[in-house]
Parts: sequence; structure tokens; C-alpha cells
Amino acid sequence: MARRPTLEFWYEFASTYSYLAAMRIEALAEAAGVEIRWRPFLLGPIFAAQGWTNSPFNLYPAKGRNMWRDLDREAARHGLPPVTRPNPFPQNSLAATRAATYGADHGWLVPFSKAVFETSFARGESIAEPAAVARILDRIGLDGTAILRAAAGEANKGRLKVAGEEARSRGIYGAPSFLAEDGELFWGNDRLEQALAWAAGDRPAGLR
Amino acid sequence: MARRPTLEFWYEFASTYSYLAAMRIEALAEAAGVEIRWRPFLLGPIFAAQGWTNSPFNLYPAKGRNMWRDLDREAARHGLPPVTRPNPFPQNSLAATRAATYGADHGWLVPFSKAVFETSFARGESIAEPAAVARILDRIGLDGTAILRAAAGEANKGRLKVAGEEARSRGIYGAPSFLAEDGELFWGNDRLEQALAWAAGDRPAGLR
Repeated sequence: MARRPTLEFWYEFASTYSYLAAMRIEALAEAAGVEIRWRPFLLGPIFAAQGWTNSPFNLYPAKGRNMWRDLDREAARHGLPPVTRPNPFPQNSLAATRAATYGADHGWLVPFSKAVFETSFARGESIAEPAAVARILDRIGLDGTAILRAAAGEANKGRLKVAGEEARSRGIYGAPSFLAEDGELFWGNDRLEQALAWAAGDRPAGLR
Repeated sequence: MARRPTLEFWYEFASTYSYLAAMRIEALAEAAGVEIRWRPFLLGPIFAAQGWTNSPFNLYPAKGRNMWRDLDREAARHGLPPVTRPNPFPQNSLAATRAATYGADHGWLVPFSKAVFETSFARGESIAEPAAVARILDRIGLDGTAILRAAAGEANKGRLKVAGEEARSRGIYGAPSFLAEDGELFWGNDRLEQALAWAAGDRPAGLR
């Protein structure tokens, strides 16, 4: 059987549209015959390098107001439950992203990532404190306390930092982002379908 | 015959995604049974109020690079000609927007607006100087010199300013934007289909 093409899914746990993409990507990827590589990363350092010390949705209030309304509309359109707004927004995603980075080698990255997103955007609970992350890990049948300890080790922290540097060096400036094997970069939940089509070899006719 | 619902299409001549929306909106609106009210405005004052003195695509280079690639992909996907990049980008859109504002009462707003967008993004020619705008007006069979003179009058300039204030007061923070009769605001070419569906009375099930 031919190897399936791979699409990298770069996501940030504090990101509203990363949540929508995370809820949609598995079914769409299956239909497209594409393998997804989940790539958790921290958007904060990339935003900070652009001079943003907060979410653009907070920095630009008119944009922020309409983003929340758009998120409600998009969730309804995709059959997802009503969106709960994290308080505060954005949530500090450091502990959850460290755990996800650790999980990449241990077989539970995807269910954990989906559980973090649902905790924040569908249950309206905090994902910010290490204790909140431990509860999510426990809830999916893992040992939260032990994993948080391992995830706080220098090796894992270094790995997360390298992922952030990789994101920036490959042109990523927001989340979610999708990277095809040939380096083609798509930004935003609105481009998930196009990114999957691209990964599957379906390019728009006439594109140079 | 029942009155058709109306959707307002707010656009900026310097805006890349306004171009895509302008090329797509007529056929989609016809199919949806929606009347479009074309609303030219200047995004510059709104960006300036947010602290931006340039296009965000220039301010954030990684975002800008991917925007141009995305624009190429989207144009190809929608069957539009290859995109030509205005030089400089963004183009000064003052003269063209004044003319469009004047045209709203004279029956040629839509063909003129489409001609401006095509001049900039499909022919790669300037739209910035009054002489360039006069040539576009002449090309569609109007008297460019006379119209530019009328468009530079105080009454028309005041009307353009009021349109900008209306945009901001109704929550607009970018272009293109779409406003339904009930005030529902959609931002971006990616939301054109949803905005038309909304205007036609089709709301996502479960939306609060």
C-alpha cells in the first residue's frame, strides 16, 4: 500500500481557531487520505517577536468582538457545541504545551490535545495551572502528576523551545498553521480543507 | 414579488482580499437571491486608529509573504487570472475611493469598482494617481477628468469621511466586510458565502 502523504498541524492551546481545526481535522484528513502530524507549539514568543504582548483579539477590540461572534457562528456551522470563552483569555498554555510535547513520544498526544481544547472551549474550565493540566491527563486515564514532572524536565523544555524555533524558521506566524511535505504553508482553520487537498496532491489549476 | 434581502459589501481598493470578494460577489449574490450594496471606504484611518501606519502585511513580513502566496492559491482556486502585485503595496486609494463615492449616485459604481480592482490586481497598473483613476473612468466610457473634478468637491469628500465613520461605528475593522440588514458583521473574503446565506435567512442551527 502506498504511503499516505503527511500534513503537519501546528496548533496553540490558547488559540480559538486552533480549537476549531483540532475538532475538525481527523474526519477531514481521513476523507482526504492524509496522515496528520500534530505539532503543539507556543505562539507567545512568535507574537512577542512581532511586538505583541497580548492576543491580537485583545489588542484590537473591534476585531476581538467580531472574532468571538465568528467563532460562535463557525462552531454552530460545524456542529460543535456552543463555545465557552476562556477566562482569562488567552489562557496560559505553557504547562499544557509542555505536557503535549512530552506526549508526542508516548502515544497520547492527540487525545490529550483534544481534551485540552474541549476543556477550554467547550467546558469553560481552566487549562492554565499545572493542576488543571494534571486533571485533564488523569481524566483520559494517564498519571497526571508523573507526566507533569517529566514534562518539566530540561530535555522536554528544550524540545518545546526547538519546536518554536522550527515554527518560526518555516514561516509560521499564527495558529493554526498547516505545513505540507513540500513546505507549502497554510494559515488558519479556514484553510484546513485546502491544505489537505494540497497534501493529497490536488493543486489549483493555473497556479504558478 | 418579495423584496430581496440586502447585504452591504464594504471594500477598500488597496485590499487584496477585497479584490477577490469583488470578483466573486455578483455571481454568488445572484445565486443566493441577495441584493448587494457596494460600500467603498478607506481603511487607512481605521488602521491608523489601531496604531498601524502601514498594511499589516508589510508590518509583519512572515504574514505578508504567506498572504501573497495564499492570494495566488485563492485566485487560482476561484478561476481568476494570476494576481499582479501592486507596486508599491498598498496603493494609495484616495482618488479612486473619492471617485467611487461620487459614482454611487450615478449608476456606475459597480463597473468602476471592478475596473479599479482589475487594474491593480490583474493588470498590475497603478491606481494611485488621479490620472490613473481618470484613465480607468475613460476606459469604461465615462468622462474621467470631469468626474475627478466633481469627486474632489467638498460635498463628496465629506460623504467619504462620513462613510468611514459609519464603518467604524458599525464595528468594521478590516476589508472586505459584509453587513447584513440586522447588523450581523462578517469579515473577510472567506466569509462571503456565509454572509450571503445569513442575509438570505439561512442561519447555522444551534446558534445563540
